[in-house]
Amino acid sequence: MQILDSLQWRYATKKFDANRFLTNEQVNTLKEAFNLTATSYGLQPIRLVVIKNKELQEKLVSPTWNQRQVVDASHVLVLCIENTIDAAYIESYFKRVKDIRDTPDEIIRPFKEFMINSFADKTPEELSIWAAKQAYIAMGNLLTVCGNERIDACPMEGFSPEAYDEILDLKKHGLSSVLVLPVGYRAEDDMFANFKKVRKTIAESVLEL
Amino acid sequence: MQILDSLQWRYATKKFDANRFLTNEQVNTLKEAFNLTATSYGLQPIRLVVIKNKELQEKLVSPTWNQRQVVDASHVLVLCIENTIDAAYIESYFKRVKDIRDTPDEIIRPFKEFMINSFADKTPEELSIWAAKQAYIAMGNLLTVCGNERIDACPMEGFSPEAYDEILDLKKHGLSSVLVLPVGYRAEDDMFANFKKVRKTIAESVLEL
Repeated sequence: MQILDSLQWRYATKKFDANRFLTNEQVNTLKEAFNLTATSYGLQPIRLVVIKNKELQEKLVSPTWNQRQVVDASHVLVLCIENTIDAAYIESYFKRVKDIRDTPDEIIRPFKEFMINSFADKTPEELSIWAAKQAYIAMGNLLTVCGNERIDACPMEGFSPEAYDEILDLKKHGLSSVLVLPVGYRAEDDMFANFKKVRKTIAESVLEL
Repeated sequence: MQILDSLQWRYATKKFDANRFLTNEQVNTLKEAFNLTATSYGLQPIRLVVIKNKELQEKLVSPTWNQRQVVDASHVLVLCIENTIDAAYIESYFKRVKDIRDTPDEIIRPFKEFMINSFADKTPEELSIWAAKQAYIAMGNLLTVCGNERIDACPMEGFSPEAYDEILDLKKHGLSSVLVLPVGYRAEDDMFANFKKVRKTIAESVLEL
């Protein structure tokens, strides 16, 4: 299967070619793919920060525990969550539903009220955990899309979100960083590119009932 | 782009055709794709439970808040986390690295010791949250693969994990359920199939720095 070839092709790129850049079309594909990610209730409590700025990328090296991928990569994607999921945010979602689908108010209203009430019951920490999970769905989607498009990538959980938020001034945009994904092209001498993929057997990974 | 067409094609299927079934080849693609999901450190603290058993599926309807997709779908996938991520689990990962890559012990040893120590510092709850995030990456991957293969699917966070664990006897297998994904074919009369997709604009969803 072609999609399995894509998943076999991809690997966590340890060294990027600092002189090769993605085209605008490639970056647009990643943006559109991010925006098409399935999220809980369709609320999209996530935002994609796209960085192509070597000076800014250089500042990210230290809070990424000195991993050079963030400066060598063509672009750095930072998957963020929205800091405020309140009644106004949910209202804006339903306005979008109405605008796009022309759904009658009498159908929207009860569902909207249910959502606003159920989200009002959640603590800020619960909301942040819920939103972060959606960022992980987006990461899974983006990695598969990158593989399909033969775009190299390195998914990263290990970085300082506080430092990223400060350097990128994310608070101003109401965002908190959750995951980092440098994308571009592997360096010719990235020895990790040739390593065999380490995975469980299907019998270890899957249970049929 | 073809992959964007796939992401546009997919939607959260509300009604499955109860009389159409995926082929073994299709199900194998989903199993392989799950196993190829990128996970933190490559540890794969997740397992895919595959159910094709109408009697068992019927029992899942009530703990899925009466959503009939779990019985009508061709197969129900349950994304689970491993309950025990201990030194032995990490040892087994490094045994796999050695078996597959023939990596020398002197290279494996320091990294293995670092991992065992760093995981020993985590509480069971922290380990469970960390593992669950990896299940969300797998969900993002599987949804994109389903779209690419024109397999209908409905990602579900809203179910009773405790009831699933009990009905599927998951404790016996050292697993806890995290996410549910019925897969198969949409029913001809699923009106949701024709709804326009509701998404933010790219300007709302993406921030360029």
